[in-house]
Amino acid sequence: MAGLGAEIMQRVEELAAITEEPGKLTRTFLTAEHRRAGETVIGWMRGAGMTADFDAIGNVVGRYEGSSPGLPALLLGSHLDTVRDAGRYDGMLGVISAIACIGALNRQGIRPAFAIEVFGFGDEEGVRFQSTLLGSRAVAGTFDAALLEKRDAQGISLREALRGFGLDPDRVATAARRREEALAYVELHIEQGPVLEAEDLALGVVTSIAGASRYAVTLTGEAGHAGTVPMALRHDTLAAAAEAVLLVERRCAQGARLVGTVGQIAVAPGAINVIPGRAAFSLDLRAAEDEERRRAAGDILGGLEAICARRGVGLEVTETHDGPAARCAPWLMAQLERAVAAQGLAVRRLPSGAGHDAMALAALTDIGMLFVRCRGGISHNPAEAIAGEDAEIGAAALLHFIRHFAPSVGTGRAP
Amino acid sequence: MAGLGAEIMQRVEELAAITEEPGKLTRTFLTAEHRRAGETVIGWMRGAGMTADFDAIGNVVGRYEGSSPGLPALLLGSHLDTVRDAGRYDGMLGVISAIACIGALNRQGIRPAFAIEVFGFGDEEGVRFQSTLLGSRAVAGTFDAALLEKRDAQGISLREALRGFGLDPDRVATAARRREEALAYVELHIEQGPVLEAEDLALGVVTSIAGASRYAVTLTGEAGHAGTVPMALRHDTLAAAAEAVLLVERRCAQGARLVGTVGQIAVAPGAINVIPGRAAFSLDLRAAEDEERRRAAGDILGGLEAICARRGVGLEVTETHDGPAARCAPWLMAQLERAVAAQGLAVRRLPSGAGHDAMALAALTDIGMLFVRCRGGISHNPAEAIAGEDAEIGAAALLHFIRHFAPSVGTGRAP
Repeated sequence: MAGLGAEIMQRVEELAAITEEPGKLTRTFLTAEHRRAGETVIGWMRGAGMTADFDAIGNVVGRYEGSSPGLPALLLGSHLDTVRDAGRYDGMLGVISAIACIGALNRQGIRPAFAIEVFGFGDEEGVRFQSTLLGSRAVAGTFDAALLEKRDAQGISLREALRGFGLDPDRVATAARRREEALAYVELHIEQGPVLEAEDLALGVVTSIAGASRYAVTLTGEAGHAGTVPMALRHDTLAAAAEAVLLVERRCAQGARLVGTVGQIAVAPGAINVIPGRAAFSLDLRAAEDEERRRAAGDILGGLEAICARRGVGLEVTETHDGPAARCAPWLMAQLERAVAAQGLAVRRLPSGAGHDAMALAALTDIGMLFVRCRGGISHNPAEAIAGEDAEIGAAALLHFIRHFAPSVGTGRAP
Repeated sequence: MAGLGAEIMQRVEELAAITEEPGKLTRTFLTAEHRRAGETVIGWMRGAGMTADFDAIGNVVGRYEGSSPGLPALLLGSHLDTVRDAGRYDGMLGVISAIACIGALNRQGIRPAFAIEVFGFGDEEGVRFQSTLLGSRAVAGTFDAALLEKRDAQGISLREALRGFGLDPDRVATAARRREEALAYVELHIEQGPVLEAEDLALGVVTSIAGASRYAVTLTGEAGHAGTVPMALRHDTLAAAAEAVLLVERRCAQGARLVGTVGQIAVAPGAINVIPGRAAFSLDLRAAEDEERRRAAGDILGGLEAICARRGVGLEVTETHDGPAARCAPWLMAQLERAVAAQGLAVRRLPSGAGHDAMALAALTDIGMLFVRCRGGISHNPAEAIAGEDAEIGAAALLHFIRHFAPSVGTGRAP
């Protein structure tokens, strides 16, 4: 298997050069750069012995037949789109690593007792149409046709963008796999967090993908002159927001697999000498267990009400997102763990705080994920980095997993 | 004295119509609108029996001679410039009320044993050249000629703007009064705070103008994915800033005449799903006593260091302003209090948290200030409002003060 790491790292660079913005990596759904990146990947897939093409929503799909044609398939892959000014491993590493594994099978003439399909999903990040997982939802059969009317910042609808890409928006549903066609979905992805690095481990086996709740919070108090309004007469919305930020931090520290973040805040009027009469902030809550997330959300929103009541500040909370956690299938975790152990590594289970295509695929079939260590836990940033040796060991573990893959009793979802 | 209130309120409307921005009141230093407003005020001054003109820095100055020409003068007034989208009473009320009082004296043929000068200062707010009190500093003799090189947002220097207004920038110093020419400076102004309204009082006598310290604070932590970085591994700059905001609030609540405000805050990268790696905020501290302000600043900055050290967050603090408090002269306060009591009102002393031209004049002569109640404590806002009856009673008290004014022993500054 020597050499997979070097090939993977080189192909990551090749894809990273295909960008909408010179000097930074930005590649969004259904653009000319999406097409160029997809065509490059299709070329690699064919070179690895697969049939390959764009599907009905613009995903790249390659198929490697098993010992006989038309067998149910083990699904592999990740996404090819990026955030703005992105790193080069998020998504791409999973697609390229899977292709490298198929190439190795093909070179050795191995045909398993199942087919393998590799997906390069066209949209996971949701940058262009502000709706995530469009590519994987289409494959899972959960794509909502109402999304076709969503428009990007230029006013172009998803329907129009699909047509512009040479696709028929009324045929998106044909991208879906049937349950009996899929044995499982397994995704290799960079961790995007610091846990594996902190424990000096190249790989980790994901237990679940966190569910997430997002809220937009607006506080309305009273603006006033910073010099003339005594402290006791103020209704300072930034002070109320500050209490909320610390409440989120305190409450989320109580759960090992619970995180809460206030990533955006704005105050008005925003002058050095004016008490903020209005404050708006975002709240992002995630947990491996939905029940834990809901309890935390209840505590935080209740606490926020108490803070605002005490301060005489108006409160408006809008839930902007509520996505359940997706559990990885124990039987897939067990097989991934054996593949990790076969590399001579300690087995580390960890939840994924970030969302992934696997969340969408969970509606179709059992899911599993393999995490590769990344430098400093940094992601969604040009500084995103992994070691070439970790790319190598990740691909080796994935190949081991494929070669020893034993579908669950019956095909498709475990009971 | 009946009728002064109506005249004052009507003239306030007349001045408010002279604006650089249609639909809102904005009038900055040395603009065409400054000239038009000044010419209007000069007309009113002459109508009240004064000689009047622009001075060497563009202030409007009117002089009402006393029982013989050339006597030392009681100085009255306030400013004619505004913030952007301003209220119509801040500054203007003091100039218009003083002119109304002189008009009343003149109609009755009263010539006191001292002259009276009324100033309509050209710049107090500092909007155009980002430097406050330019007009009153010139009169106090503390105008720093280096300021002539300051440039506005269009790149026009103060020197060029003065020339454009028809003034000689090298003669600004001639606007200064000598100490022996000035008996005192007394300014009527809206409170810009809620204290008088809360106590149901139309007028208050100012004890001192708060000193102010301003700081720009920057925190540097670590950005990270909101879903993947465990709470315990975060260096969240917004959480650190939140602690700072609450520390400011808590510490300033300990002093009756101490206020602290964080009016601006920004976080980067500012995405809903990214831990803020950078936060910047402003801090404005004011106190009637400089020593109290310095102690509070020391406690807050020390606390901020402790917060950042505990959180592993980098801290940079820049002091952007440090202005001492200006005390009102007890002998002037006593005479203003008698004038307030003569209106049948309870006497309320209160400090001014906002800055005023009187701060600059304190370098020349003793100062006193009379506050007029404003609605809801709102200022620097088009919603700024006062009752016509309060304008009337304010002018009546100022007129009573003028008619009974007894200069301190010797002229100029009390010991």
